[in-house]
Amino acid sequence: MTYKENAEKFIETYGLSIGDKIQVNKEDITYTGILLDRPEDADDGYLVLKLSSGYNIGVAIENTAAELIEKGEKPKIGFGKSEIPADPKKQNISIVSTGGTVSSVIDYRTGAVHPAFTASDLVKANPELLDYANYNVKALYNILSEDMKPEYWVKAAREIANDISNGSDGVVIAHGTDTMHYTAAALSFMLKTPVPIILTGAQRSSDRPSSDANINLIDSVVAAKSDIAEVCVCMHGSLNDKYTYLHKGTKVRKMHTSRRDTFRSINAQPIAKIENKKININPDYAYTKRGVNGLELNANIEEKVGFIKSFPGISSDYIEYHIDNGYKGLVVEGTGLGHVPNDLIDSFKRARDENIPVIMTSQCLYGRVNMNVYSTGRNIIDSGVISGVDMTPETTYVKLCWALGQSDSYNEVKEIMHEDIAGEFSEKSSIKDFLN
Amino acid sequence: MTYKENAEKFIETYGLSIGDKIQVNKEDITYTGILLDRPEDADDGYLVLKLSSGYNIGVAIENTAAELIEKGEKPKIGFGKSEIPADPKKQNISIVSTGGTVSSVIDYRTGAVHPAFTASDLVKANPELLDYANYNVKALYNILSEDMKPEYWVKAAREIANDISNGSDGVVIAHGTDTMHYTAAALSFMLKTPVPIILTGAQRSSDRPSSDANINLIDSVVAAKSDIAEVCVCMHGSLNDKYTYLHKGTKVRKMHTSRRDTFRSINAQPIAKIENKKININPDYAYTKRGVNGLELNANIEEKVGFIKSFPGISSDYIEYHIDNGYKGLVVEGTGLGHVPNDLIDSFKRARDENIPVIMTSQCLYGRVNMNVYSTGRNIIDSGVISGVDMTPETTYVKLCWALGQSDSYNEVKEIMHEDIAGEFSEKSSIKDFLN
Repeated sequence: MTYKENAEKFIETYGLSIGDKIQVNKEDITYTGILLDRPEDADDGYLVLKLSSGYNIGVAIENTAAELIEKGEKPKIGFGKSEIPADPKKQNISIVSTGGTVSSVIDYRTGAVHPAFTASDLVKANPELLDYANYNVKALYNILSEDMKPEYWVKAAREIANDISNGSDGVVIAHGTDTMHYTAAALSFMLKTPVPIILTGAQRSSDRPSSDANINLIDSVVAAKSDIAEVCVCMHGSLNDKYTYLHKGTKVRKMHTSRRDTFRSINAQPIAKIENKKININPDYAYTKRGVNGLELNANIEEKVGFIKSFPGISSDYIEYHIDNGYKGLVVEGTGLGHVPNDLIDSFKRARDENIPVIMTSQCLYGRVNMNVYSTGRNIIDSGVISGVDMTPETTYVKLCWALGQSDSYNEVKEIMHEDIAGEFSEKSSIKDFLN
Repeated sequence: MTYKENAEKFIETYGLSIGDKIQVNKEDITYTGILLDRPEDADDGYLVLKLSSGYNIGVAIENTAAELIEKGEKPKIGFGKSEIPADPKKQNISIVSTGGTVSSVIDYRTGAVHPAFTASDLVKANPELLDYANYNVKALYNILSEDMKPEYWVKAAREIANDISNGSDGVVIAHGTDTMHYTAAALSFMLKTPVPIILTGAQRSSDRPSSDANINLIDSVVAAKSDIAEVCVCMHGSLNDKYTYLHKGTKVRKMHTSRRDTFRSINAQPIAKIENKKININPDYAYTKRGVNGLELNANIEEKVGFIKSFPGISSDYIEYHIDNGYKGLVVEGTGLGHVPNDLIDSFKRARDENIPVIMTSQCLYGRVNMNVYSTGRNIIDSGVISGVDMTPETTYVKLCWALGQSDSYNEVKEIMHEDIAGEFSEKSSIKDFLN
């Protein structure tokens, strides 16, 4: 138990243990739920309860009384470095935490959210996970995802490959939402996998009443046990807690700053919907089945890749800067079908002359880059710029880092950029794929 | 008539005039429509016909015969430098063309689209416009919108102010779609207007069968005659030709590379729907009525403003570059609620020390920037970065150019950035505002 001082005293006074079903009485309100353990650095003035809705809440103990409703069992974990032996009838799922809101708590003193939970805390805070699988839990690092760097993609890919080699039947990665789609794309290019690799997160920390951490985590385990051997993102599918969507790791993007259903497939449909812990796979979706691919890790990347967007006042110096400062490649978010001011085109020619691939994407986000329609686009193609087709700008950036890790030849990089490595291109656009 | 050589001979042979209803017979297909005039630099092997659907098509005259169905009247234009006197019962609408697909034709030799029409051609190509108003037509410049620069915003704002001073009851601006939302935001900040100012464009050039130029133009005239004295974008509202939406100039964005219903209100609802040439104003929308504001032009802007987006491999050199190269302000598209890697924060502090305002927006596009939730956000605020709240990144960039045209004091710019100048902030978010 990690409760200390006031909280520890309170728990002893009422004869409670972690895992007990308890009732907490405050002046105007009564909570009933399972008493959970707290992360190491928690405030000692609060208890954490898991309500029957699955939500975890923090309850201040000042002016509070408690009573035991039913003795519980302290949650135990099977598989990996476990407290109890694995259940041979269950699949073995790895949970890797990297930080982020899904594994964060509110600092009750400042109100700010910071990463605190480890993967092990995640299981402790969501004990019903134990009904679904044996777990191998591991805290890889503990950062908010805005601080994720390409070198962390490499570390995560290696760790995941290691877990799969050691017998994982599926991997769940707890990740901050800000850059989850960048990491999902990176793992998609770096790993060929015989088992599902599922990234998940939360838009509300797990001790806030509206947290989406619980359903996202459990549904990710459902996805990790499924037959879809791909890198996917599993997140809330609507404003309520009814279902989650599974998105292809190369076709997904965070589209809202705060909504729980923020992740959306772009130029594609979700792979599957998970509702009531059951997975319904989109019948139009030709996924790679479990066991079809062997495990292959190719984590070579080039980190010196630029990423800019075009705008009315942009100067060609933005392009020259990258050439002059040793960047090995550049992704441009153009306007419309993939345009920039004609002023920039001479700098694209210079980049081409210096063997620096420039890839064009669109700040529209939806639709395809097509530089054959307008004269500007044709000039851009002639200057050696490569089309990102219908990849998101973010996936294009990640893919260029990876492609430059495979080759430093412009022509080979161009070939890789136009080869479908991890389902990053949609064969054709569907009307349903816009703003869905 | 601007038809020349082969086309001119063909028209003379069959005794046709511009405005006639004619039938054109090719081996396998017969077209019936109004013979339109062609832009000056057109290919001489084609006629342009307006079909009854409103679409204009180019018909090759090789192996083609024609017959006259009904003599027509050559379209005439009242108001401004006109061929016929204005009808005093009609409103006076200015049409200003700036180029773009709405005023483009296909080059039938290469298949590429390039700007060719003038505003006058626009009226000639859409003769039913004459039923709605008297027109003052003017070609301001003739460029594809990816080449629009901030200096063109200034020129357009001055021209529009001039037209309004000279008695326009409404202004329609024909504009390329790539950067239409940037120009719409710029005109919103630069002009207080007693009459509607409506930007419109097309995703297909007006001589392609699927062109949206016709309905967009006519509905823009309907909007320009309405009671909404604001800067708006009027574009297709769906995949068919049934209706258009009117979007607030500061809350709109191009969201698809090719669809005709590409423009969407972000964090807001459209102001009005125009269907069957009738405008239905959203009852929740408190618009500024015609005549309430006097005409005010404030076109002072600072062009040396940077605009970048955050990504996992971004280096603080991206920020330092702008400080070192004389940029007066910088807009950052952060991740999630408005985050960047913590590595960048020292450079934000340097920008603050050097009196360079940095504004934070979100690459999610939807939702609000809120830097109070996470520790990273709080550090970013402490470094002097200013929130873009719920403005699109593009509107934020344009507003910063304008704010720096009003003041070079960090504190005054911060005040302007947080003051609602042109409806750029939504009071509260609605569930309906996401991906609508």
